[in-house]
Amino acid sequence: MKALVYHGPGKRSWEDHPDPEILEPTDVICKVDTTTICGSDLHILKGDVPAVTDGRVLGHEAVGTITKVGASVTDLKVGDRIIIPAITSCGKCSFCKVGHYSHCQTVGGVGWIFGHLIDGTQAEYVRVPYAETSVYKVPEGLDDEDVLFLTDALPTGFEIGVLNGRTKPGDTVAVIGAGPVGLGAIMTAQLAGAGRVITVDMDDNRMNKALELGATDKVNAADPDAIEKIKALSHDGLGVDVAIEAVGIPATFQTCLDVVRPHGNVANVGVHGTSVQLPIENLWIHNINISMGLIDGYSIENLLRMVESGKLDARQMATHYFKMSQFEEAYDFFANAAENHAVKLVITTD
Amino acid sequence: MKALVYHGPGKRSWEDHPDPEILEPTDVICKVDTTTICGSDLHILKGDVPAVTDGRVLGHEAVGTITKVGASVTDLKVGDRIIIPAITSCGKCSFCKVGHYSHCQTVGGVGWIFGHLIDGTQAEYVRVPYAETSVYKVPEGLDDEDVLFLTDALPTGFEIGVLNGRTKPGDTVAVIGAGPVGLGAIMTAQLAGAGRVITVDMDDNRMNKALELGATDKVNAADPDAIEKIKALSHDGLGVDVAIEAVGIPATFQTCLDVVRPHGNVANVGVHGTSVQLPIENLWIHNINISMGLIDGYSIENLLRMVESGKLDARQMATHYFKMSQFEEAYDFFANAAENHAVKLVITTD
Repeated sequence: MKALVYHGPGKRSWEDHPDPEILEPTDVICKVDTTTICGSDLHILKGDVPAVTDGRVLGHEAVGTITKVGASVTDLKVGDRIIIPAITSCGKCSFCKVGHYSHCQTVGGVGWIFGHLIDGTQAEYVRVPYAETSVYKVPEGLDDEDVLFLTDALPTGFEIGVLNGRTKPGDTVAVIGAGPVGLGAIMTAQLAGAGRVITVDMDDNRMNKALELGATDKVNAADPDAIEKIKALSHDGLGVDVAIEAVGIPATFQTCLDVVRPHGNVANVGVHGTSVQLPIENLWIHNINISMGLIDGYSIENLLRMVESGKLDARQMATHYFKMSQFEEAYDFFANAAENHAVKLVITTD
Repeated sequence: MKALVYHGPGKRSWEDHPDPEILEPTDVICKVDTTTICGSDLHILKGDVPAVTDGRVLGHEAVGTITKVGASVTDLKVGDRIIIPAITSCGKCSFCKVGHYSHCQTVGGVGWIFGHLIDGTQAEYVRVPYAETSVYKVPEGLDDEDVLFLTDALPTGFEIGVLNGRTKPGDTVAVIGAGPVGLGAIMTAQLAGAGRVITVDMDDNRMNKALELGATDKVNAADPDAIEKIKALSHDGLGVDVAIEAVGIPATFQTCLDVVRPHGNVANVGVHGTSVQLPIENLWIHNINISMGLIDGYSIENLLRMVESGKLDARQMATHYFKMSQFEEAYDFFANAAENHAVKLVITTD
């Protein structure tokens, strides 16, 4: 088969790669019909994730069709169309048993293994371990594109941003960063009943996309009065109920601390490369809560229902289309996502 | 009357002070029968809380008897014995309406005003604003000492430590710091069903007191293997479910981050004087939650029921007794609480 293979910092190519085989009775092999590229794939390509080694097939998001099933698989069969989420979960360890799939102990302590510790989904075929406890069947009548972003960007924005941020109906939510996961938070904050959703970014194009996706207000982060403008959008001027960090740098984390009201929530979604300063000598008395994490995926089932019922149009995240044979070009394009006005790419078989 | 009056950093005296008077129809005047000293009174005395100015009567914890009631007070009457908690709440502002009394907007945005923004409880008499929405009647049959520590130390340990830490039955809880509020967390973690409660301190006397109060294990923080020993006490060695910070310095905050398991909670109770480093580049993927705050007092009613029913023996916190005329001596004694093996003092009228 062909696959997008990592060969050390800065090097990747769409090339021949051995076909995946069933290794465990709980595996399935899946033909990848549709996949995409995540911001973390770009981090890997920069060499920021040393666990990813030369020869690894990248990618952790896909929709595909099962071509082989392992001996113990009973509820999935050849021909089933499935959603392959970013997180693999054994279903049996103490973390999986309480829904903390992000830290499945059986697959290595972190549930994100595709394109990280095992070969990923940016390929014509992929081996899916613990398939029955990890994947979702695509409901009848839905296209790949309807469900593709339920593999990672949308449930990450929802679980790690909106739900960890304890968003209540009527809350004012500020989402700092309007990349794919920030937009996922903006789309799903509305599902959680947020009264006002403020998009904050330095890129007006991205904020305009956020407004299309349901944000009610925008504040440019480069505005010297940005903090005061964000706070002024809360019902009493004391700050937002939920501040979602969707960038991953100290400045935007600090923005969240600056705009959150007493008893508010800072939900960190961004993946950070350096530590941040926590001015706890001032913050302690403000009764704020700070959460952070990797997606578990427990919300995918519910998001899927909302896609089915028309409450969530997940395909709105798609902005550009590529074929798998154009994978290298797609990477170059996505690396300049902001200037290309790209949110998520849809990459399909040729 | 006599009162313990602050006169700038390092200076306080038990001296004559004008009797308090009813200023608002929602006030009551209360004869203070029993009071105590809090660690934050020592901070004030060092000059660390600039809002406290020369001439202020200190103290924010007391049990007393009502001597006068304001014109609009209907459910409290002269002669009622009341618990005066650290937090004053108007009951009417948007924060009070959702139980966030710690940030009552009517009294200035922070509900802690006794011995801070208005005269406090270390006096023969005290004016209690918003009495009906702030105080609790002492149930029949309970001594002052049974309920004195429900004014601050116990509900702070419970709300800001145990409950903000989302302690579940069976959880392993590490409490870093065995001062009064840490002990409050240790006592109330058991009420929340904690399976194992680990006391961590550098002072063996304090840890032994913690064991008397129900801690199941102790680990000396000075032990170079302390982190590994604490983690080894969790059921699978991956860390504790809840790490409660009850000191207020960067090192103990870091200890919490070091011992908490993925998907665990760090509940900061300590009052910090400097900022801390948050190594979010490593932590983000661990799905941890960090909370912090000032007591609201919403748990006092329930704690009171548990004292009444014998499930909580709050007087176990009391270690030493003073009369009000010995207030200055009591301050000196409490300033050396560790070497004096003191937890909380009980200070009564002469």
